[in-house]
Amino acid sequence: MNRRSFLRSSIAAGSAGLAAPLLRAVPPASQAKLIQLNGNENALGPAPTAREAIEKAITISNRYPFADAAKLTAQIAGRHGVSSESILLGNGSSEILRLAVQVLVKRDPLVITARPTYEAVGRQATALGIEVKQVPVAGDYSHDLRRMRQSAESHPGESLVYFCNPNNPTATLTSTQEIQDWVASAPDDTSFIVDEAYFDYVEDAQYSSLIPLALKKKNLLVARTFSKVYALAGLRIGYGVAHPETIDRISSLTRLNWNALALVAASASLRDPNFVQQSVRSNRESKLIVTDTLRELNLSFLPSHTNFIMHRLSGDIRDYIKRMKDHGVLVGRPFPPFDTYCRISLGLPSEMKQYAALMRMFRGKGWI
Amino acid sequence: MNRRSFLRSSIAAGSAGLAAPLLRAVPPASQAKLIQLNGNENALGPAPTAREAIEKAITISNRYPFADAAKLTAQIAGRHGVSSESILLGNGSSEILRLAVQVLVKRDPLVITARPTYEAVGRQATALGIEVKQVPVAGDYSHDLRRMRQSAESHPGESLVYFCNPNNPTATLTSTQEIQDWVASAPDDTSFIVDEAYFDYVEDAQYSSLIPLALKKKNLLVARTFSKVYALAGLRIGYGVAHPETIDRISSLTRLNWNALALVAASASLRDPNFVQQSVRSNRESKLIVTDTLRELNLSFLPSHTNFIMHRLSGDIRDYIKRMKDHGVLVGRPFPPFDTYCRISLGLPSEMKQYAALMRMFRGKGWI
Repeated sequence: MNRRSFLRSSIAAGSAGLAAPLLRAVPPASQAKLIQLNGNENALGPAPTAREAIEKAITISNRYPFADAAKLTAQIAGRHGVSSESILLGNGSSEILRLAVQVLVKRDPLVITARPTYEAVGRQATALGIEVKQVPVAGDYSHDLRRMRQSAESHPGESLVYFCNPNNPTATLTSTQEIQDWVASAPDDTSFIVDEAYFDYVEDAQYSSLIPLALKKKNLLVARTFSKVYALAGLRIGYGVAHPETIDRISSLTRLNWNALALVAASASLRDPNFVQQSVRSNRESKLIVTDTLRELNLSFLPSHTNFIMHRLSGDIRDYIKRMKDHGVLVGRPFPPFDTYCRISLGLPSEMKQYAALMRMFRGKGWI
Repeated sequence: MNRRSFLRSSIAAGSAGLAAPLLRAVPPASQAKLIQLNGNENALGPAPTAREAIEKAITISNRYPFADAAKLTAQIAGRHGVSSESILLGNGSSEILRLAVQVLVKRDPLVITARPTYEAVGRQATALGIEVKQVPVAGDYSHDLRRMRQSAESHPGESLVYFCNPNNPTATLTSTQEIQDWVASAPDDTSFIVDEAYFDYVEDAQYSSLIPLALKKKNLLVARTFSKVYALAGLRIGYGVAHPETIDRISSLTRLNWNALALVAASASLRDPNFVQQSVRSNRESKLIVTDTLRELNLSFLPSHTNFIMHRLSGDIRDYIKRMKDHGVLVGRPFPPFDTYCRISLGLPSEMKQYAALMRMFRGKGWI
């Protein structure tokens, strides 16, 4: 949803002062009765430690949380074994992605992304008047590194290459080794953002983080978020990891602008000894329910390394979205050119059982 | 404090993984024992309605709060009697200020600000490589409109003029009528940001908002915040009001990036029938304690229309800051060229009585 459609839904609903009519368009999270499988959120909700930390910090919402930001920065730096100067907290990793676009390509800029992929980088480039080259994913749904590289190498100016790995919305992996090889050997006029939003869900032994390389290469930024495995999407807290000089350049565009409750929630989440494991376990269970159902219904799907799955439909995604909503389930929006696919986020196992029952019913009606 | 000094304090403190040593530099809000008169915060803390709303929303911190953002946008629009398309929520009004700089001046850009004034706009311009012309405040400490206008009119490219009214750190007013006259008659290549962060504290009958004009002039943005009278500084929630086309241009650089708890807290604060009045009343009481003390000590001060006061010292501000901190009180940092002035934020009346006692003691020691 973009800002225009977001506002249009409010306006269509009538009086600007009334909240109730807005609910027709999107249910407010606080009153949601629908099963929300459309936002790649973590249905477990925040870790118990995070809930407690927020509750304790409510009274200090009137204070600028500089010290808590320093504390979380140090805590994250400690976990990655890097210095605090290599970490930049953002209002969601999406803020970091947007600022990085602005900083990492200047002269005759080109931004290169996969198609489909997470849109924050491409959209920001467009908003800044930067040309975006979208390279369709390869046959195995990984980023087509060969074609992306050709695009960068044939561009006369500076290029910025965006990898979302695992990729959203396909849930698929691109070889860490191949990304590393390219980044390590790339000339200075090619920069890279590697978005590791779904890092903790990956169980593939060949997959690893590009953070070690980011400390050496000034033209690489790695983005991480607390929105997924830590279930804090609504608090907009994420971070970038890069060479201190790169971090300094990016941070010049956003100053001391942290939400106190997001900081304490993220910090407490990192201290929770069980939550990540619990999130991953719940996600694995939900994934199994969905893949079993899809197999039973003969609907093919891409291998998922995330908290969502991209699967085939026999009809058009738009009809399917509407029917699912009519039955109380929100599923992923269209991701062109995958118009006969649906991205289904993995909710709680209990929710996925309801989804599975609905899918069988839909098949009975010939809708999928 | 900028990012470097913020991190330096962490690093000087030793191990990156340890939080405790950081506290030496800035006390975490959650453990503050010091009287904090350095951040223009509202010491009352969030409104009871806001606290309750946050508490209720903790469990949905895992959800993207699109509907709550639409609801708050409509609520704010309703209060100002404008359409939702004229409102853009930001992570603090400072995010709106920064994005506006980027959007409002393009061709051969010049940013014109007062000196001293709130730094977000000038710093963002510098970070973007835009020249900043700082015009010293006039003899009555208002913005020097004549010289600012000369700067804009003699600049061959596009100009962006920033007014902070009342101004931070001087707490003084600039004539609404004179700002309005200039904005209304300015050519298209001159844009304006009017920052009304301290709007609700002003009791001067000649003062009013520029929001009505912002709806007509595409080259004007008015910024408002929930950080001051609503006591939500730590939640980073503010907004811009402008012509829908201007809002659209700014919003293209920040997408759907709202903190769920900030949204519900702001929305609940607006519904609280008493909180603004209570904030203003408490602030008035604190101001009286401070002005009485300053008069008693023969320390002159600028007329305050905000929740802080700029007053004269007989010594250097740097010594004074250190001594105050040694005695448990944090006061405002230096604001060049006002090096023999201190900006003191107005805390609770009980805190200002402690401050007053300390001031008398300082006078006894010949320090002020």
